[in-house]
Amino acid sequence: MNILEIIENKKNAKELSKEEIEYFVKNYTNGEITDYQASALIMAICINGMTQDEILTLTVAMANSGDVLDLSDISKNIVDKHSTGGIGDKITLIVTPIIASLGVPVAKMSGRGLGITGGTVDKLESIPGYNTNLSIEEFKKNIKEIGISLIGQTVNLAPADKKIYALRDSIGCTKSIPLIASSIMSKKIAAGANAIVLDVTCGSGAFMKDKEEARKLAKMMTLIGKWAKRKTVCVLTNMDEPLGYAVGNSLEVIEAVKALKEEMPKDVKSVVVKLATEMLNLAYKNSSSSDNKKKILEVIENGKAYEKFKELVQKQGGDVSYIEDTDKFEKAPIIAPVLCEKDGFVEELNAEKVGKAGLELGIGRMKKEDLIDSRVGIVFEKKIGDKVKKGEVLAYVHGNSPEKANTCVNNILSAYKIGTKKVSKKNIIEVI
Amino acid sequence: MNILEIIENKKNAKELSKEEIEYFVKNYTNGEITDYQASALIMAICINGMTQDEILTLTVAMANSGDVLDLSDISKNIVDKHSTGGIGDKITLIVTPIIASLGVPVAKMSGRGLGITGGTVDKLESIPGYNTNLSIEEFKKNIKEIGISLIGQTVNLAPADKKIYALRDSIGCTKSIPLIASSIMSKKIAAGANAIVLDVTCGSGAFMKDKEEARKLAKMMTLIGKWAKRKTVCVLTNMDEPLGYAVGNSLEVIEAVKALKEEMPKDVKSVVVKLATEMLNLAYKNSSSSDNKKKILEVIENGKAYEKFKELVQKQGGDVSYIEDTDKFEKAPIIAPVLCEKDGFVEELNAEKVGKAGLELGIGRMKKEDLIDSRVGIVFEKKIGDKVKKGEVLAYVHGNSPEKANTCVNNILSAYKIGTKKVSKKNIIEVI
Repeated sequence: MNILEIIENKKNAKELSKEEIEYFVKNYTNGEITDYQASALIMAICINGMTQDEILTLTVAMANSGDVLDLSDISKNIVDKHSTGGIGDKITLIVTPIIASLGVPVAKMSGRGLGITGGTVDKLESIPGYNTNLSIEEFKKNIKEIGISLIGQTVNLAPADKKIYALRDSIGCTKSIPLIASSIMSKKIAAGANAIVLDVTCGSGAFMKDKEEARKLAKMMTLIGKWAKRKTVCVLTNMDEPLGYAVGNSLEVIEAVKALKEEMPKDVKSVVVKLATEMLNLAYKNSSSSDNKKKILEVIENGKAYEKFKELVQKQGGDVSYIEDTDKFEKAPIIAPVLCEKDGFVEELNAEKVGKAGLELGIGRMKKEDLIDSRVGIVFEKKIGDKVKKGEVLAYVHGNSPEKANTCVNNILSAYKIGTKKVSKKNIIEVI
Repeated sequence: MNILEIIENKKNAKELSKEEIEYFVKNYTNGEITDYQASALIMAICINGMTQDEILTLTVAMANSGDVLDLSDISKNIVDKHSTGGIGDKITLIVTPIIASLGVPVAKMSGRGLGITGGTVDKLESIPGYNTNLSIEEFKKNIKEIGISLIGQTVNLAPADKKIYALRDSIGCTKSIPLIASSIMSKKIAAGANAIVLDVTCGSGAFMKDKEEARKLAKMMTLIGKWAKRKTVCVLTNMDEPLGYAVGNSLEVIEAVKALKEEMPKDVKSVVVKLATEMLNLAYKNSSSSDNKKKILEVIENGKAYEKFKELVQKQGGDVSYIEDTDKFEKAPIIAPVLCEKDGFVEELNAEKVGKAGLELGIGRMKKEDLIDSRVGIVFEKKIGDKVKKGEVLAYVHGNSPEKANTCVNNILSAYKIGTKKVSKKNIIEVI
């Protein structure tokens, strides 16, 4: 077997054998296969696709390419949660303390932001002192003691996926259902979860622009999960406009903390409650959705979820006073309003445009090495369906220089479409 | 414009604009675009193809990526000849002195062998002293003085093609009509020819395995030639079995010298006469094929072509005594017969298998850095259509070690298919 034959087979749209896929994953991970050869194969997969069997084999091979976590000493019932990425997506910060406060252990490794979508690790690091870089032993110890830990990907988890993902990003092959599905599921399987709830975002700010594509991806991931004996549920959610009102690292933490204190934006709430309910459904056998939903609303109302979040922050070295008083978070030096130019209704608030504007502002990284500014971001005052008047504030841009803030004000303005109709919107599209 | 967008466009089977193709060629040549990005684009081109306009643009961009030779001070009528590659293909060594002896200047840069197909430069270098590495000034001076020069590619000719070709070779993308056509034609255009005769090989030992594919390639190259104002004719020739009886560097020189002295194998003769006729047709306006053919047979018969070859060898520093007495060429230490195992007719002598056997024997290079042994090779005694008897010699393997010779004997035996029918064959398939 050699890589040339494997590449040619996929070029000619043939199904690759188990041996061929395993050969590729093993030898690309160890550097025997060059980037340019992997690149040719990835492109051929992108264009010619993969069968179900190929996708399953690829997922397992990538999951086994590095460490595979064993969390069975903590619980046989670890429920993981993952989002396919969005703008203003702070759901993990809210859902995980809710779940943990209901006695379901949360062992979550999150990513940093790359491209226009933010990352939970960057958000958590905006809390002074919070350490996302724990050893596996500390990680497990925290979960045993307080039922929750949120860290970055510290172990050598699915290194094959890491290499393939980075390559895809630089050769225009990010949008491919076989590659997205195997990438996400390989990491989830290696991270030791027994059950997985996936938030499959769909719309202008997501990889999947239309519902049909999102549905296909969701079905593929559910299938992989079933095959790998991980109960898997996908919730399709809307990513046409940013989620909630805040976009930016500390700004999103502030919004999440407020959400845990009952001040939760309607769209955020619908996604939080839906995902948490599905997670509890998987964690508690024979439980009913309506009971679980009731429990979730209860721990938000009685402050238990909020207390769990504080406990988490303290345990990981963060300064809890920032959570207790979110005004302590350092503000960006410039806060500039985005003013509405005419009367009407917000018909569109393009999430992709917001994401790109945020990236230029310094929320995310253009390249992996870039530094981010946790203070900067956008706080929306008006979203889709809202009535607006000329001269009213649509949003506030929090910037670290007048030039960047100015550019962002214009970019945000162009993300809005003000029309004459009151558009209705739906946050949860369906559960697969 | 950026490379990601270009890659994505071709991934989505869109037509690339002139600007996009030129951007790619320029920035890949200068190293701005990485190998793995070029690799993804090349694979997308391989799978999704290119329109005529794209192929024309690519050809011109590659031709202009380095030096473009101006031979107009020698003649306005330089006819170049190129083969798409084959096993035992020594046609250049025979055709060019024929043409030169008829007063048509020959300015030919040839390649080295790579893969299973041999290269004219390696063959010429088996003549002691022959220098394939002349400067452009010496090259032109020789053509002015004796009407012919055969050298290696010494100048920076179509460097974009050189990079793309090497990449294609290592990612399983050699067989692609847009890429083969643009690669050949870019080099021919940059090399300064006014008219081009292309020998498009077709069969087991060629890139194009079937006639339909070969025809498509020929039509594409003719079209590019027309568009670039180079009169272009393609001759489709059979490459199901090796051409002539000798395969190997000095062995092919010996066969070529004998051919110029009227001892020309039938299949070699049909290709030589056809290609030379087409070249004269292009060189002399309003000349007739039958007149040109007569002239060609004449210069072979009266020894003028042979004298011209000797003149060429002497001019480039080669030892002419080897041409005058080909027994002087050093023989390989081992000459092992391949014996026929049953009575019948040769129904097949698979050129690809012969090529691979020759590569292992040391005729060609596995990698660019490999050294070759000019002595080794195979001399066939029986070819397709020949009647054979059990125990008769089918071929002689000339090897430099008993192990290699032995392996080659078995490989050559497996390239033969002895059956009961006398198969007929056709060397010239058609002219396009």
